[in-house]
Amino acid sequence: MTKRVAIIGAGPSGLAQLRAFQSAKEQGAQIPEVVCFEKQSNWGGLWNYSWRTGLDQYGEPVHCSMYRYLWSNGPKEGLEFADYSFEEHFGRPIASYPPRAVLFDYIEGRVKKAGVRHLIRFDSPVRNVSYDEDSGMFNVTVQDHANDVEYTENFDYVIVASGHFSTPNVPEFPGFESFNGRVLHAHDFRDALEYKDKDILIIGTSYSAEDVGSQCWKYGAKTITVSHRTAPMGYKWPDNWQEVPLLEKVENNTATFIDGTQKEVDAIILCTGYLHHFPFMSENLRLKSNNRLYPVSLYNGVVWEHNPKLMYLGMQDQWFTFNMFDAQAWYARDVILGRLSVPSEEEMHADIDHWREVEDNIEDDYGAIAYQGDYTLKLMDMTDYPPFDISGAVQAFLEWKKHKKENIMTFRDHGYKSALTGTMAPAHHTPWKDALDDSLESYLKTDA
Amino acid sequence: MTKRVAIIGAGPSGLAQLRAFQSAKEQGAQIPEVVCFEKQSNWGGLWNYSWRTGLDQYGEPVHCSMYRYLWSNGPKEGLEFADYSFEEHFGRPIASYPPRAVLFDYIEGRVKKAGVRHLIRFDSPVRNVSYDEDSGMFNVTVQDHANDVEYTENFDYVIVASGHFSTPNVPEFPGFESFNGRVLHAHDFRDALEYKDKDILIIGTSYSAEDVGSQCWKYGAKTITVSHRTAPMGYKWPDNWQEVPLLEKVENNTATFIDGTQKEVDAIILCTGYLHHFPFMSENLRLKSNNRLYPVSLYNGVVWEHNPKLMYLGMQDQWFTFNMFDAQAWYARDVILGRLSVPSEEEMHADIDHWREVEDNIEDDYGAIAYQGDYTLKLMDMTDYPPFDISGAVQAFLEWKKHKKENIMTFRDHGYKSALTGTMAPAHHTPWKDALDDSLESYLKTDA
Repeated sequence: MTKRVAIIGAGPSGLAQLRAFQSAKEQGAQIPEVVCFEKQSNWGGLWNYSWRTGLDQYGEPVHCSMYRYLWSNGPKEGLEFADYSFEEHFGRPIASYPPRAVLFDYIEGRVKKAGVRHLIRFDSPVRNVSYDEDSGMFNVTVQDHANDVEYTENFDYVIVASGHFSTPNVPEFPGFESFNGRVLHAHDFRDALEYKDKDILIIGTSYSAEDVGSQCWKYGAKTITVSHRTAPMGYKWPDNWQEVPLLEKVENNTATFIDGTQKEVDAIILCTGYLHHFPFMSENLRLKSNNRLYPVSLYNGVVWEHNPKLMYLGMQDQWFTFNMFDAQAWYARDVILGRLSVPSEEEMHADIDHWREVEDNIEDDYGAIAYQGDYTLKLMDMTDYPPFDISGAVQAFLEWKKHKKENIMTFRDHGYKSALTGTMAPAHHTPWKDALDDSLESYLKTDA
Repeated sequence: MTKRVAIIGAGPSGLAQLRAFQSAKEQGAQIPEVVCFEKQSNWGGLWNYSWRTGLDQYGEPVHCSMYRYLWSNGPKEGLEFADYSFEEHFGRPIASYPPRAVLFDYIEGRVKKAGVRHLIRFDSPVRNVSYDEDSGMFNVTVQDHANDVEYTENFDYVIVASGHFSTPNVPEFPGFESFNGRVLHAHDFRDALEYKDKDILIIGTSYSAEDVGSQCWKYGAKTITVSHRTAPMGYKWPDNWQEVPLLEKVENNTATFIDGTQKEVDAIILCTGYLHHFPFMSENLRLKSNNRLYPVSLYNGVVWEHNPKLMYLGMQDQWFTFNMFDAQAWYARDVILGRLSVPSEEEMHADIDHWREVEDNIEDDYGAIAYQGDYTLKLMDMTDYPPFDISGAVQAFLEWKKHKKENIMTFRDHGYKSALTGTMAPAHHTPWKDALDDSLESYLKTDA
C-alpha cells in the first residue's frame, strides 16, 4: 500500500519538500502520496504578502509578517536554491538584495517548473495532529474553509513546515493600556507611509527592529527611537535616529526609559521576535523551542527524536534559509524513502546534545554562520541535493556583515558572487534609499 | 457519580451560568461539578479591556473587541440583572449609559458576591470538544498556558459561552493591498486619539460604525466618512461627517465610491461585523449561524437539537443582553438539573423552525425588540430567575431609539426608569460629548 505523507505549510520549507519528492520521482523513484495543507489562499508562506492583520477572512490568525517595501536583508547569494539559480529564473544576473515581489517570483518559479501545485490544499489550516499507537499512523484534522467543513485523514508521516515567524512574541510595558497611539508588533506592520512625519518608538534590536526602523526612515518618519534591553545595535544611524535603554513606561504619549530620559512618540512598534507555536500538534508531538540554531528533540535538526515519522523543517534560527530548508527537505525525503536510516532514540538524543553543546560555545556571529554552514553541508552530503560551494555562500554572509557595519543605509547597494554560477551580481540601478518603488517591474528594469 | 459540566468562556454568558448554578446551590440543590475555561487572564469577556490586538502573549487570537472611551450604546435599564440591580451594586442610582469600566465593575460585582471565581481556569483556551458516543461524554481538550501543557478531560455537559463578537468579518476591497495607511477592523480599534486630525473612512452602518465614528468625532478626527452598502444610517450627523455609497476601490490614499465621488483618507476602519466562529468544536457539534435573533439548531435558543447535552448561550443577535443571557443560563441549568425536559429532536426542530419563521416576518426594529422580549420572557417563566417587568426594559429600548433619532450625539445624556427598582436614572454630571475621561472614578463623581 502506498504510504501517505502530510506536509503542513506551503512556504519555502513545505515547497522544498514538495520539490524534493518531485525530484526523486523525476529520476524514477517510487514516491509516497504527498498532501500539503496550506492555511493561506496561495503558496509562498511569509513571502505571500497580505494587507490583512490580526485575523483573516476565515477568522484564522494572519500568517503574514511581511510588510510593503521589504527588500531582502541578506544577500540572495546566501539563500540561492542549488537546483535553480537566480540566473536561470530571471534569464540574467540580477542585483543582490531583491525586494519581496522578486523573491516571491523566484520561489514560485522553481515550484511552477516542478509542477507540484496540485498537491496543495489551500485555505486548509490543520487543526490537530495526533499519533495513533495502534495503527502507527497520524490523524490529521483539517479545516476546509472553501467548503466550511472539518475532516480527518490518516498519514504515515507528518512534516511540519509551518514556520516560526508568524506568531508574535508580544511583551507588555507599564502604561501600554493608556498609550494614546498605536501599539503594534512588527508582525502587524504593513506600510511605512503610515508613519511619515511621526515620531516612532521601536522596542528590540534584531532584524525586525533594524529593518522596520530603516523602512520608516526611508519613507519619511520624523524620528526613530530604538530601545534595547541589553545593548544598542551600534550601527552608524542617520541623524534622526537614536538608540536608548530599555523602556520603563509610557504615559499618554511620553515614553520614559530606564536611564530617566524621555521621548514623545506617536506609535510604538514591538520588534520583539516570534514564538515557536504549534497549537495544532498534540502535546506529545509538539516542538517547544526558543529561537536557536539547534532546537531540542530534532535529530539532524529535522527528525522528531521521540517518533521519527514526524519531522520539522526550518525550525532553526536562521542565517541560511532556502538552501538549508532544501537540504532538510531532501534529507527528510530520503529518510521516508528508506534511503537513510535513523539510529535509536538514545543515539539521536546524544547526537542532538552534542550539536547543542557546540552551539552553546559559539563565540560570535561569524562562528554562528560557519556552524550553520557545517550543519547544512552535513545534510547536503547525505542526499543528492546538488552540491555547491557552500563556503561561497558563507563568504557572501561575511561581506554582507562588513557592509552593514560600514553603512547600514547603503549595504544593499553592494553585490556578491553566486556560489552556484560564479557570476558577480550587477549593481542595482538605484541606491536602496532612493528606490521607493519596490515592484518586480521596477527592480528588473535595466535602466534607472 | 457527580455529573461534570464544562462552561467555555467567563464573559457575561459564562458568568451567568456560574451564577445560575451557585444560586441553585445556595437554595439547597445538588449541583454538578462545574469547570469554566477562560482564554483570557481575567473574567468579563468583551468587557475585559486589553490594549493588545491580533495575537496575545500566548499567540492566541485576542478576544477583546473593546476600545477605550466606550460608553454603553444602549440604556443600562435594558440589560440590568434581575437578581442584582445597579442600585444594589453602586449603593445609589447612577446615570443610564455607563462607560466600560463601570459596566465591568457591575458585572464583576455580582459574581464576586456569588463567590464563583475559583471555578474558572484562566489562560485556558479550549482546543477541541468532541462527543464520545460510547461513553456518552464530551472530551474537552484544553491548553493550559500557565503550565504550557495541553490536557483532555471528560464532561457530561458542555455549555459554549464564548461569544460571537470576537472574530471579525473582514471583507476586501480593491486596492487595500496598496493603501498608504492603516486598514483595520473595528475589532482592532483601541484609542480614538490615534485618529485625531485625521480623515477616516468607515465601512458599515451597524453599531460599530455608528459608535467608532462617534468616538473619533468626539476625540478630534478631522472628518468622518461612512460608506454603506444598502442605505445610510440617516442620523443627524455633525458637519464634518458624511455618509456615502459603497466603496469601489482605493488607490494610494484616495477612496472612490460607486457613485464616482472620491475622498482622501488616512485610515480605513472596517465596521463589518463579526463571525460565529467555533473552530474548537468538532464538525458535528459546531454551530454555523449568521447573526440573527433565532440561530439554527438551538432549541429555546440554547439547546443543541442534535445532542441536548450541548448548549450554546448568547448566540443571538442582541437587543437584550445580560438579562437574556441570564434567562438562558437559568434555563440551561434547569435542563441539566433535570428540572426541565426537552422533547424529541423532531419536536425541537419544529419549534425552532416556528420561531425562525416568526422572526422572518418581523417588520422593523420595534418588532425585533418585542420578539426578543417575548423570547426572554418565555425562558424566564420556566425557571426561578427573578421575574421583573420586562416591558419596562422594552420601554427603555423604545425611548433610546427615539432619543438617538432626535440627536445621535446627545442620546446618552438621557435617563430611563429601572424595570427592577422603579428608580429614574439621574442625569450624568457631564454631557457625553464633553466627558473625555471615561474612568469609573470620573463617572461616579457626584459633581462635575
